[in-house]
Amino acid sequence: MKTKIGIIGYGNLGRGVELAVKETGDMELAAVFTRRDPKSVNIVTPSVPVVSSEKLLEYKDEIDVLIICGGSATDLPGQTPEYAKAFNVIDSFDTHANIPQHFANVDMAAKASGRVAFISVGWDPGMFSLARVYSNAILPGGKDYTFWGPGLSQGHSDAIRRIKGVADARQHTIPVKEALEAVRRGEAPGLTTGQKHTRVCYVVAEEGADKARIEKEIKEMPNYFADYDTTVNFISQEELNEKYSGMGHGGFVFRSGRTGKNHENNHVIEYSLKLDSNPEFTASVLVAYARAAKRLYDAGESGCKTVFDVAPALLCEQTPEELRAHLL
Amino acid sequence: MKTKIGIIGYGNLGRGVELAVKETGDMELAAVFTRRDPKSVNIVTPSVPVVSSEKLLEYKDEIDVLIICGGSATDLPGQTPEYAKAFNVIDSFDTHANIPQHFANVDMAAKASGRVAFISVGWDPGMFSLARVYSNAILPGGKDYTFWGPGLSQGHSDAIRRIKGVADARQHTIPVKEALEAVRRGEAPGLTTGQKHTRVCYVVAEEGADKARIEKEIKEMPNYFADYDTTVNFISQEELNEKYSGMGHGGFVFRSGRTGKNHENNHVIEYSLKLDSNPEFTASVLVAYARAAKRLYDAGESGCKTVFDVAPALLCEQTPEELRAHLL
Repeated sequence: MKTKIGIIGYGNLGRGVELAVKETGDMELAAVFTRRDPKSVNIVTPSVPVVSSEKLLEYKDEIDVLIICGGSATDLPGQTPEYAKAFNVIDSFDTHANIPQHFANVDMAAKASGRVAFISVGWDPGMFSLARVYSNAILPGGKDYTFWGPGLSQGHSDAIRRIKGVADARQHTIPVKEALEAVRRGEAPGLTTGQKHTRVCYVVAEEGADKARIEKEIKEMPNYFADYDTTVNFISQEELNEKYSGMGHGGFVFRSGRTGKNHENNHVIEYSLKLDSNPEFTASVLVAYARAAKRLYDAGESGCKTVFDVAPALLCEQTPEELRAHLL
Repeated sequence: MKTKIGIIGYGNLGRGVELAVKETGDMELAAVFTRRDPKSVNIVTPSVPVVSSEKLLEYKDEIDVLIICGGSATDLPGQTPEYAKAFNVIDSFDTHANIPQHFANVDMAAKASGRVAFISVGWDPGMFSLARVYSNAILPGGKDYTFWGPGLSQGHSDAIRRIKGVADARQHTIPVKEALEAVRRGEAPGLTTGQKHTRVCYVVAEEGADKARIEKEIKEMPNYFADYDTTVNFISQEELNEKYSGMGHGGFVFRSGRTGKNHENNHVIEYSLKLDSNPEFTASVLVAYARAAKRLYDAGESGCKTVFDVAPALLCEQTPEELRAHLL
């Protein structure tokens, strides 16, 4: 019997989850839940119901795993603990600093209900976190480096759009090639986030706006831009839509560490992603962890989990025998 | 209390394990077992006993995890099932085709004794297998590519040394840069192992040997060289010792796959290693899995396991809280 997946929140991520479920042989989409008028939401899979999120609890026995496709700022802190009271759930909570608090809230709810809840699943946090943990276990005395991009930063784009006179904007984060190559060569340099990345801004100014002031405000914005090599390009709305609205992203995780009697041998571990669609890739990770959530729940486990807490074989549709024969 | 590690077999790998244990805060070396005269074996750690392997069973209660540092061809198929009768064990069995049989033998022994046994731990099989499994789970319709090198191939070096007139030899496997770049660009080409690697041979000929014949025999050797772009360089023993006897190795694992309604979005996942010392890095992986073996045994588990069967958090000295706060 196939694992029945529910999606709550049908934006780019929810749609990606729907498509990722189609690529599996052991899962099927059971329902999509939305806060909008269900009649206004057109999904890709024929015959699957689109239901008001108010009716979610009515589907308690028809959903094996609920994939929560809300945002980390305002949706997930409330939704994930709430839905974990009745469902096995997965979210992609990505506010790194708040993960311990979110974990505690979700763990309490999921332990009380006897459900399994995975938080912070995706690529960072998610696959990048796994790269960091495995390489930390192997090279305990080493140094970690994470580079993001090239790709769109949603948070930085929002920050620019809040500036007076800005009609629209996109910010692309680009890894600094020389820094990346130095790390790859095993030089283990000391690097700040600003030394690892440049920020390129594509800005549509409102008619008559003072572009010099906008550029200055962007470049001097603390935390977001002041510590970076930042470039501001003023372009038309058409060019922005056409050239700079893609959802591509990616990045690089390195660990560099030494072994040997006198630490004479250097090792570099590198993990990288080059993604045409950030939400669709994130969704594909969420679906793999939905498979694991069902298996852990069936095995009697409960509580909050992260990617650190599940054996990789549980993510795969193949049997353990197939994995050992073909992928080990 | 620290986890007590035993090493059996004190060659390059065993010595690497000894050094890797020193890098941890939660493990200590309890004894080294050897088939040689213990008096002839000098180890790095003062005060740790070197013991004849015949006395291994006398140390049953003094070793938490025994790391078996023998070779896959003749040592491990017998040793790992044998030692799993009395110890939690880890090996680096790397004959891919024989893994299912080795797993079955070790699993039977470890289940009978109630011990935990990890097989095929290292980087391939090991870390490369993990890269393949995670990326297969995420992109089920994709394609896998593994490139090895640049680094020394022991098996191919041995094959050359068996040719008449060859005094010594080393074979370096080099990934083909154009093939690797095509995979990295997401072109998902069809590639044979021979199209992905070139083989460079450094050969010391015996005095008066027919070098043209040796070169022809190497290049025409089936399986080993016939399907590859092979280069043969005749050099002196001194040059071989000085320049081509290093233990560096590494390689690249890619998975390339598509998502989207019409599979319009491509994704490339890349994992790579650049290692100054193949045995010391392999040893560092073995030691991380020894930590997990102890934890699984303490939790009441038994039987044969691979890297696919353990949650990454169990490999780390840090607590789950520390991992979530700093590495997620």
